[in-house]
Amino acid sequence: MDYQESDFDLTTYLNDKKELINSELDKIFGDFANSSHIVKAMKYSLMAGGKRIRPILCLAAAEAVGSDQEAALPAACAVEMIHTYSLIHDDLPAMDDDKLRRGKPTCHVAFDEATAILAGDALLTLAFQNLSAPVNIKESQALVWLNVIHIVSIAAGYKGMIDGQMQDIISEGTLLSLDDLENMHALKTGALIEASVCCGAILGNGNRKQIKQLKIYAKNIGLAFQITDDILNVEGNPAVMGKAVGTDKNRNKSTYPLIMGLKESKIFATNIVNNALKAIEIFDNKADPLRAVARYIIKRKK
Amino acid sequence: MDYQESDFDLTTYLNDKKELINSELDKIFGDFANSSHIVKAMKYSLMAGGKRIRPILCLAAAEAVGSDQEAALPAACAVEMIHTYSLIHDDLPAMDDDKLRRGKPTCHVAFDEATAILAGDALLTLAFQNLSAPVNIKESQALVWLNVIHIVSIAAGYKGMIDGQMQDIISEGTLLSLDDLENMHALKTGALIEASVCCGAILGNGNRKQIKQLKIYAKNIGLAFQITDDILNVEGNPAVMGKAVGTDKNRNKSTYPLIMGLKESKIFATNIVNNALKAIEIFDNKADPLRAVARYIIKRKK
Repeated sequence: MDYQESDFDLTTYLNDKKELINSELDKIFGDFANSSHIVKAMKYSLMAGGKRIRPILCLAAAEAVGSDQEAALPAACAVEMIHTYSLIHDDLPAMDDDKLRRGKPTCHVAFDEATAILAGDALLTLAFQNLSAPVNIKESQALVWLNVIHIVSIAAGYKGMIDGQMQDIISEGTLLSLDDLENMHALKTGALIEASVCCGAILGNGNRKQIKQLKIYAKNIGLAFQITDDILNVEGNPAVMGKAVGTDKNRNKSTYPLIMGLKESKIFATNIVNNALKAIEIFDNKADPLRAVARYIIKRKK
Repeated sequence: MDYQESDFDLTTYLNDKKELINSELDKIFGDFANSSHIVKAMKYSLMAGGKRIRPILCLAAAEAVGSDQEAALPAACAVEMIHTYSLIHDDLPAMDDDKLRRGKPTCHVAFDEATAILAGDALLTLAFQNLSAPVNIKESQALVWLNVIHIVSIAAGYKGMIDGQMQDIISEGTLLSLDDLENMHALKTGALIEASVCCGAILGNGNRKQIKQLKIYAKNIGLAFQITDDILNVEGNPAVMGKAVGTDKNRNKSTYPLIMGLKESKIFATNIVNNALKAIEIFDNKADPLRAVARYIIKRKK
């Protein structure tokens, strides 16, 4: 393959995609001035400046298999709603008790706990409303969308993201083995990232082999993403990140830097990104955005 | 119509349906002995002895339009999961702070707050997993199931049940007008009851006129259900109900007895049940269970 990293302008790509996703998400609630209390809270967190990694991966996967990104847009919005709901609930006093997220007060600080719980619930529910909206669906595609709903619900559910968060909370103060840590992150962060990529590929009408390779790619970048999060929590710049650092250590959380050391964590993340890149060697340059995102994940500063 | 109330044995009907739903719900998680912490909490609340009114209405609506109840079973289970999740979250300290539900400690008391939040999230997510499970769906039915997912997500979402709960919390300590109270309950309790009946009728292949009349029926019994809840909170027996009474008054909640008086509330509930019965006059005796449930709602003691 004669692909060169420099051929591709990731910054412009990410900005374009982010703008598209933000504009789609923004449309959903209609006129903000007349919105209810719950909508204000939902929108506050949904539009708080997220990186939109999951929806971008969803769109990029659709493009990698040769489709138009439009095919995957409702799924891209849905995974971002689910990601945002999970952040709102994880930030609650009964969970991680975080006061700051993306440089802004967390939802329960800006509103109150009850509103934050309900705003999270509402964003999760809205994701499924968005995935089943008649406007998105032709009759011939109905079974494909049901499959997407099923994949997303399993990834976000009690055998996926929620179990990961539960394990994270239960294991606070206990030093996990590397296997247990990897398993926890595969659930907590990996499952939804994998579903995002997988649903993009399915909606883009990818074939079985393409979907299989994209899932391996996603599993690896999901893990790399988490390792980098752990590294940033040690040596990141709070001003750049918009949230506090050192919180994992204060909470006695098991992290990659703690278990394998900081330097080794960085090497590990690089190796894993290489695995991700290898998995999508079968794709042509339409997968360049996925390749660039994989490299970006370990270079990011926030 | 020569239908006589005495022709129909509601107690046996409710018990049979409840047993079917309990057995379906019980199957979902598989072997309990090996289940994760989150599954234990989900199952604790899901199997805590609920009346199963919503799923029973869902099955009864499928039967009323001439179908087998099996057609609606996954939807019946899904609405009960959503109902249970909403109870778990409503009971949280940041919301209604209830310690007792159905005679047992509430989820956050039996486990802890973080687990209760996640168990609620997981049950909501599981509802959509259940509604999209391939085992339930033939290709020719895919669009019908998407429609059901859409109806349920709207009813449970930020323009339905969640907005109702939000309004309920915001309005605590304020005396609502009768219109505002009715609107709040139409959202908080009514929307999911209406969706339960509506989805049962759709999955049972009911025609447009049948679905329309069943929605009117559902809207009315939803309201009657809430008025009766308010009445039981004044004069119910805590030992029979498995939860405390007088809590609405202590919290300065707007209720029907407070706004229109206890006697008038009972008359109002009876009139509304009559509206529900009138709406389903077009149905034959296959709708007798729905008729009996409507009458039961205002006679119940818990």
